[in-house]
Amino acid sequence: VNEFELINNYFKSNASLASSSASDVLLGIGDDAAIVRLGERRLVVATDTLNSAVHFPVEAKPEQIATRVVAVNLSDFAAMGAIPHWATLSLSMPNTDEQWLAAFSHTLLKSLLAYDVQLIGGDTTQGPLSISLTVMGESKKDNLLVRSGACVGDDIWLSAYTGLGKAGLDKVLSGNGLPKNKLKKLTEQEASFLVDQFYQPVPRLQLGQRLLGIANAAIDISDGLLAEAEHLATQSQCVLTLNQPSIPVHPILSTLYNQDQQWQAILCGGDDYELLFTASVDQRKALNDLSKEMCIPLARIGQVDKADNQQGDKVILLDQLGRSIEINEKSYQKGYLHFNA
Amino acid sequence: VNEFELINNYFKSNASLASSSASDVLLGIGDDAAIVRLGERRLVVATDTLNSAVHFPVEAKPEQIATRVVAVNLSDFAAMGAIPHWATLSLSMPNTDEQWLAAFSHTLLKSLLAYDVQLIGGDTTQGPLSISLTVMGESKKDNLLVRSGACVGDDIWLSAYTGLGKAGLDKVLSGNGLPKNKLKKLTEQEASFLVDQFYQPVPRLQLGQRLLGIANAAIDISDGLLAEAEHLATQSQCVLTLNQPSIPVHPILSTLYNQDQQWQAILCGGDDYELLFTASVDQRKALNDLSKEMCIPLARIGQVDKADNQQGDKVILLDQLGRSIEINEKSYQKGYLHFNA
Repeated sequence: VNEFELINNYFKSNASLASSSASDVLLGIGDDAAIVRLGERRLVVATDTLNSAVHFPVEAKPEQIATRVVAVNLSDFAAMGAIPHWATLSLSMPNTDEQWLAAFSHTLLKSLLAYDVQLIGGDTTQGPLSISLTVMGESKKDNLLVRSGACVGDDIWLSAYTGLGKAGLDKVLSGNGLPKNKLKKLTEQEASFLVDQFYQPVPRLQLGQRLLGIANAAIDISDGLLAEAEHLATQSQCVLTLNQPSIPVHPILSTLYNQDQQWQAILCGGDDYELLFTASVDQRKALNDLSKEMCIPLARIGQVDKADNQQGDKVILLDQLGRSIEINEKSYQKGYLHFNA
Repeated sequence: VNEFELINNYFKSNASLASSSASDVLLGIGDDAAIVRLGERRLVVATDTLNSAVHFPVEAKPEQIATRVVAVNLSDFAAMGAIPHWATLSLSMPNTDEQWLAAFSHTLLKSLLAYDVQLIGGDTTQGPLSISLTVMGESKKDNLLVRSGACVGDDIWLSAYTGLGKAGLDKVLSGNGLPKNKLKKLTEQEASFLVDQFYQPVPRLQLGQRLLGIANAAIDISDGLLAEAEHLATQSQCVLTLNQPSIPVHPILSTLYNQDQQWQAILCGGDDYELLFTASVDQRKALNDLSKEMCIPLARIGQVDKADNQQGDKVILLDQLGRSIEINEKSYQKGYLHFNA
């Protein structure tokens, strides 16, 4: 299943036609979230759905599912620099498991409140376990972080590390055993760190809001670094050139993986919920200062180039000698493959 | 599965605690929709989910599912007198069936646009077929139609007919054959009318908006007349006394059902998406005029009484001699039972 194609082919083309005529729709389908005008304010809306056995293993605990669905949704807000306020929940569950429901609802509400988000409504129905959260909030400034704002000459920045979501998932899928690809034994702390990467990723809400006025475009990289870079490039009609040696490697990845697997996780792993953004060159000092102030590593990993109609590549990956590394779908699987696919 | 208990036990109790401290949440979980304040405006939000084999038969066509999910959601707006503007869709489907998706998306967008609603975002994922729609809009007046507004002495009104949703479902489940309980052969026109009652119910959006300033409380009766009357009574802390002879009977029901089955459908069938509302006695002329103007039958079917702490009944049903008809869960199954339960 390629969910992007699904959305692009049908909903985007049809809906954009309809939405473009509605002056209250500032940003419709196709970005991290939608933005509409309500009076003097701007309403931001994002929806994400997690299905059992597709987005989390059937063994996942209710608390883990709750923290994950909140983080995944709020990451869309982070990528817009928007402030989340309210959420509605659609919960389908096969039967009335009160213990499950108590644990899930408690953690969900606690997680939402930690980000000042109120659960205001929802629908609980019978069906295969599925959790869909719609988060609403607002953007207070004019300079929103949309995917289409990247300018030729911009630096490309990445918050923290990628690959940890994939590593976390590998750990989760291995249960109490060893991750499939692991090269040496993990400490208990390392194992727990990895599981949290998958079930409790931290949405970069504050960073996103601080990037307003600094960054020109942003996207969260839930679907993998290269895939999201391609989305940004497509919507900004430019080329993103990434320098592989500048892309940070979290030390735990070399514990888990060989060189190939490590780069596979970093470039294509997905589930990372970090921000990929572009900013003009004169923002370097501001961003380095922000990185220190917020204690979030911000790495400059490339630059935005003019779209080359001859070649057609949206994302170019360069090695330490500036040579282009071939990105083919076989060696670097683009985008997020749900783990049962 | 009793979805009301699920929601009440966990989310309502937990969320109301949190929401009551948030001054921007005007109406949280527990009504037809939620209302929050955004600047000078009031945002209204409702979510409904339809799962395959639970809320519609697996044989349902994509067009039928699309019209039904739109109607079910917009009915919540009708019951609030609110105006829908935007929607996000969460669609889970087992595989990439392009033909299905084309038919579904086309009808969904067309149905939404017919009510001036723009699809602004969503999430398409792999999973068992499930459609969750979140509709956002606004309420423009102060006198919203909430469930808690009924006053002792109010008349109780019902728009059009109930029982048709259940009759439609019976026809749908019978396929090309005859409905299970049917007493005589349906004409082609009757059969098609019934199928439309289930798949294309008409949300009473305009009626709901016209009731602002006239009605004191309203609810849509998707879960059955008695069950929804009980919700209204509970939230308004009063008793709803209904006169069975005043409850209108659509002629097609006597074609399909015997007397007992007919009243079962009318009182407990569910899936009707009509409005049950209360209004003070001096609004009778206004409502009769409105009924004529809009060509929607409005029947006065009872009155709101003081809550009787001795007895504890929330809804009292009287026969033609004013005698109380015993409502027990066995003879009149309260609420909506999903058809595979």
